[in-house]
Amino acid sequence: MTVHHDTAILLISCPDQKGLVAAIAQFLYQHNANILHADQHQDAESGTFLMRVEWDLQSFDLALEQFHTAFSPIAQQFGMHWRLAHATQRLRMAIFVSRYDHCLADLLYRYQAGELNCDIPIIISNHHDTQWLAQAYNIPFQYIPVHKDGKAEAEAEQLAILRHHHIDFIVLARYMQVLSADFIRHYPQRIINIHHSFLPAFHGAKPYHRAFERGVKLIGATSHYVTEILDDGPIIEQDVARISHRDNLDDLIRRGADLEKIVLSRAVRLHSEHRVLLYANKTVVFD
Amino acid sequence: MTVHHDTAILLISCPDQKGLVAAIAQFLYQHNANILHADQHQDAESGTFLMRVEWDLQSFDLALEQFHTAFSPIAQQFGMHWRLAHATQRLRMAIFVSRYDHCLADLLYRYQAGELNCDIPIIISNHHDTQWLAQAYNIPFQYIPVHKDGKAEAEAEQLAILRHHHIDFIVLARYMQVLSADFIRHYPQRIINIHHSFLPAFHGAKPYHRAFERGVKLIGATSHYVTEILDDGPIIEQDVARISHRDNLDDLIRRGADLEKIVLSRAVRLHSEHRVLLYANKTVVFD
Amino acid sequence: MTVHHDTAILLISCPDQKGLVAAIAQFLYQHNANILHADQHQDAESGTFLMRVEWDLQSFDLALEQFHTAFSPIAQQFGMHWRLAHATQRLRMAIFVSRYDHCLADLLYRYQAGELNCDIPIIISNHHDTQWLAQAYNIPFQYIPVHKDGKAEAEAEQLAILRHHHIDFIVLARYMQVLSADFIRHYPQRIINIHHSFLPAFHGAKPYHRAFERGVKLIGATSHYVTEILDDGPIIEQDVARISHRDNLDDLIRRGADLEKIVLSRAVRLHSEHRVLLYANKTVVFD
Amino acid sequence: MTVHHDTAILLISCPDQKGLVAAIAQFLYQHNANILHADQHQDAESGTFLMRVEWDLQSFDLALEQFHTAFSPIAQQFGMHWRLAHATQRLRMAIFVSRYDHCLADLLYRYQAGELNCDIPIIISNHHDTQWLAQAYNIPFQYIPVHKDGKAEAEAEQLAILRHHHIDFIVLARYMQVLSADFIRHYPQRIINIHHSFLPAFHGAKPYHRAFERGVKLIGATSHYVTEILDDGPIIEQDVARISHRDNLDDLIRRGADLEKIVLSRAVRLHSEHRVLLYANKTVVFD
Repeated sequence: MTVHHDTAILLISCPDQKGLVAAIAQFLYQHNANILHADQHQDAESGTFLMRVEWDLQSFDLALEQFHTAFSPIAQQFGMHWRLAHATQRLRMAIFVSRYDHCLADLLYRYQAGELNCDIPIIISNHHDTQWLAQAYNIPFQYIPVHKDGKAEAEAEQLAILRHHHIDFIVLARYMQVLSADFIRHYPQRIINIHHSFLPAFHGAKPYHRAFERGVKLIGATSHYVTEILDDGPIIEQDVARISHRDNLDDLIRRGADLEKIVLSRAVRLHSEHRVLLYANKTVVFD
Repeated sequence: MTVHHDTAILLISCPDQKGLVAAIAQFLYQHNANILHADQHQDAESGTFLMRVEWDLQSFDLALEQFHTAFSPIAQQFGMHWRLAHATQRLRMAIFVSRYDHCLADLLYRYQAGELNCDIPIIISNHHDTQWLAQAYNIPFQYIPVHKDGKAEAEAEQLAILRHHHIDFIVLARYMQVLSADFIRHYPQRIINIHHSFLPAFHGAKPYHRAFERGVKLIGATSHYVTEILDDGPIIEQDVARISHRDNLDDLIRRGADLEKIVLSRAVRLHSEHRVLLYANKTVVFD
Repeated sequence: MTVHHDTAILLISCPDQKGLVAAIAQFLYQHNANILHADQHQDAESGTFLMRVEWDLQSFDLALEQFHTAFSPIAQQFGMHWRLAHATQRLRMAIFVSRYDHCLADLLYRYQAGELNCDIPIIISNHHDTQWLAQAYNIPFQYIPVHKDGKAEAEAEQLAILRHHHIDFIVLARYMQVLSADFIRHYPQRIINIHHSFLPAFHGAKPYHRAFERGVKLIGATSHYVTEILDDGPIIEQDVARISHRDNLDDLIRRGADLEKIVLSRAVRLHSEHRVLLYANKTVVFD
Repeated sequence: MTVHHDTAILLISCPDQKGLVAAIAQFLYQHNANILHADQHQDAESGTFLMRVEWDLQSFDLALEQFHTAFSPIAQQFGMHWRLAHATQRLRMAIFVSRYDHCLADLLYRYQAGELNCDIPIIISNHHDTQWLAQAYNIPFQYIPVHKDGKAEAEAEQLAILRHHHIDFIVLARYMQVLSADFIRHYPQRIINIHHSFLPAFHGAKPYHRAFERGVKLIGATSHYVTEILDDGPIIEQDVARISHRDNLDDLIRRGADLEKIVLSRAVRLHSEHRVLLYANKTVVFD
């Protein structure tokens, strides 16, 4: 959804209760909000209420720095987890990449085309292979090699750079190093990975080889938030493509690359537009 | 969405205005409604607001027969088109069919399996071919032949039967006769057709033959409300399937039949659950 | 592909070698075969050649009972595994079913509509629930309960009935009992199962529950030949459907049922038309 | 299919006759060809035989310059249209582009990644907007404005450049000018266009606007050879994506752009690998 206005986005999750929507709608109405999009979801099994509402700030009579104070009584009454985002304050994304460049190229093209509502202050790589792409799109590129037994040092260097650039979230665009639990704790629910299979099928290494051996009729790709358990974090987006015996292993890898880049770019777009809510190790995506 | 509760469904369309959601939510909250699902949509281009809200009637303190009186002030204030549905009062559907039986068989199976939130008081056909299916599922079957120059008489007979059975909406399950404008006027926006192409491609007769000749790589099916202009009514649901040169015309017809029945059954389910809103000759489907 | 002719089908797999196609084509040409369809595949990694060729028997000057003798020299020269099928000699399929009836209903409808190139001499079930469907389609139905500790007796009874009806292959249309290794050995590569997930994801029990918990964005169904390792046999066909947070567990089950029946019916059609070749625990499907 | 060998590809279409495959296979076998891929198709309705066969040249004992003489007797006997391609002699592709750059960016990325079996000697544009992309990928860029009443001059200039670069085929990567019949005649069946709809639906201008107005539930893209009748040439590839009321016109355009680039790149790959046969204003694609 292209953003034409200066808008605010409110994301809420809480136990489902009567009067929730009335209270939120009344609050926004009182402050003269012009609601552009509102999505809500009731999970009947867990009794959870989730909501995303976006409104035009032009007529809104409450300064965003005062929102917290004004909204807190309602939030406390209903036991809400909530956060407010200001659409024109674009998130700052760092891209980690190794040698495969298809996801990076796709993200950079979409960034340049204005499709992604975020900035890219830095690309970090343990190889030099993709530096030309960073240069073509005028994005700073930082080479940080990850030597055997040197992961801790490399991660310290990465973290320093991320802090320096005030990074909001990290995208692993086929970054071939496993991040440490310690690193992940610095960006909880803010590291997005692309796995080259339809998770949970073929989690772990070499999914295309294993898909080929198993003789599946569809291959997939999965974008998910990174948690300490490998390939187990909340899934943001997935897609599949049909294959046949006419596709050899190289074809699977080539066709899978197309899935990977589309699935990852969709996840980045959804995250950047504050459309993803996390709950119970899964996501609700208001698209 | 399986209905487990006795619920009410409110469908609204009106010019988009501030305070709309607050007013509706406040009204429902005041009457102690437990909202189960709420979907809304703002069409920015036409400035239209559309909403579907469903709530549990168990705690609701307003009798449904008093809803109209109670809600009218809000409806008038915002210039709403609206209607209320009571989920346990199942709609009454008549099926029209000719010789092809795949859509009928699919609808009857789903009806018997409890997938469709409607009743089927009558099947009407201009042929005897599908009578065995009606008998297998214990649905009354009425043979009404349509003779050349006898369409008016046939339609009069059909209308009498529909009235007799208090039919709410009609499904044309590959019914091969074009209905007159007069007939359609009796069931405005309440006749659902399945067309065996991806409309607007190949509207009119023999779409599979024309798709085969044109060499398209996908075939489709479209379910839509019937209007006086052939194959032009608001589209409820569409889907496609990939074909190749290995598929001859018979294969297209066979594979298309699978599309037709799935697309039509989805449309019937969506209509029966009051998930389809009409506006500007198109639909908003809250699924 | 609708069969209009009396045709023969030759299925071949062997080590890939020069002259293979020339030898086969020359043999068929010498006997005046009018080839209708020919598909071949070279698996470069394993050096395997696989072929399916179908020809019109009208002009063919070799009686099918003499085919074996005439073709054996070529088969031996190239080390072929091969078999000949006569399209008009329809395979005899037994359907095993428990309580869920959607796959059975779909198979029976397609059988009656002439879509499946096989006969159905018997339906075997450990429950009475689907008997009405068997009756509606005039197919003999045999109730064989499977008591705790009584699986061996039940399987003995099943095998006797299968032998009596000269069954060629078995379809497990959501049959909820695990077959013994001994039973499977009687019908090697001739038992087709439908699993309600995108294998290898969620193999084993309750796949929809696990898919819901994991928060996947697509659900799937897989039809495969049964081997002694549960849910591990060669995959014939798979498909998926997109889901969202708006789909609860009941929706997953309902939408999955549609996938299951379509995927299973496709697999049955492909098997019945001799389009599936097995090799290296996977299939080549010449569709 | 990645090309690992130096291979030759033979494409044949002719009236279907007995002995065809035997004659071709025998010819290749006599010259010690190691067949890597062979696909054939019999169109029963028109009685047409179509074939693509690819073999390794390493062991082939016939020089390609002598192929024509050696194969002609067979070709004449069966009335074949045929052509031979040498896989390592990459086709030379010119790209025409206007302002929209998504298709160009995708083609250039795939070219650089080695996915396209062709060379790109020149990009021609009536605007300067995409020049930076051409420079990033080191491809010569020629600006040729097309003034009102100046199309003939512009086309003359384009043709001169195409000849200079020995161009084999042209790709219109969202080139917004209609080519003259005269221009098209210089590259019969060798100009590939991308149309931003599921043809034949919404042929002509502004398909996304018309799709939005019509309320279709899927949008599409079509790649086809250009003929003198607008948007009517043989279709090479098509695909669709599901949309909903939540997608406004901008979303349709953005999501359609993803379809367009994938569909066009697939068509270019298929054409470059000599996988497309034309017949009866449609294509057979041996993929």
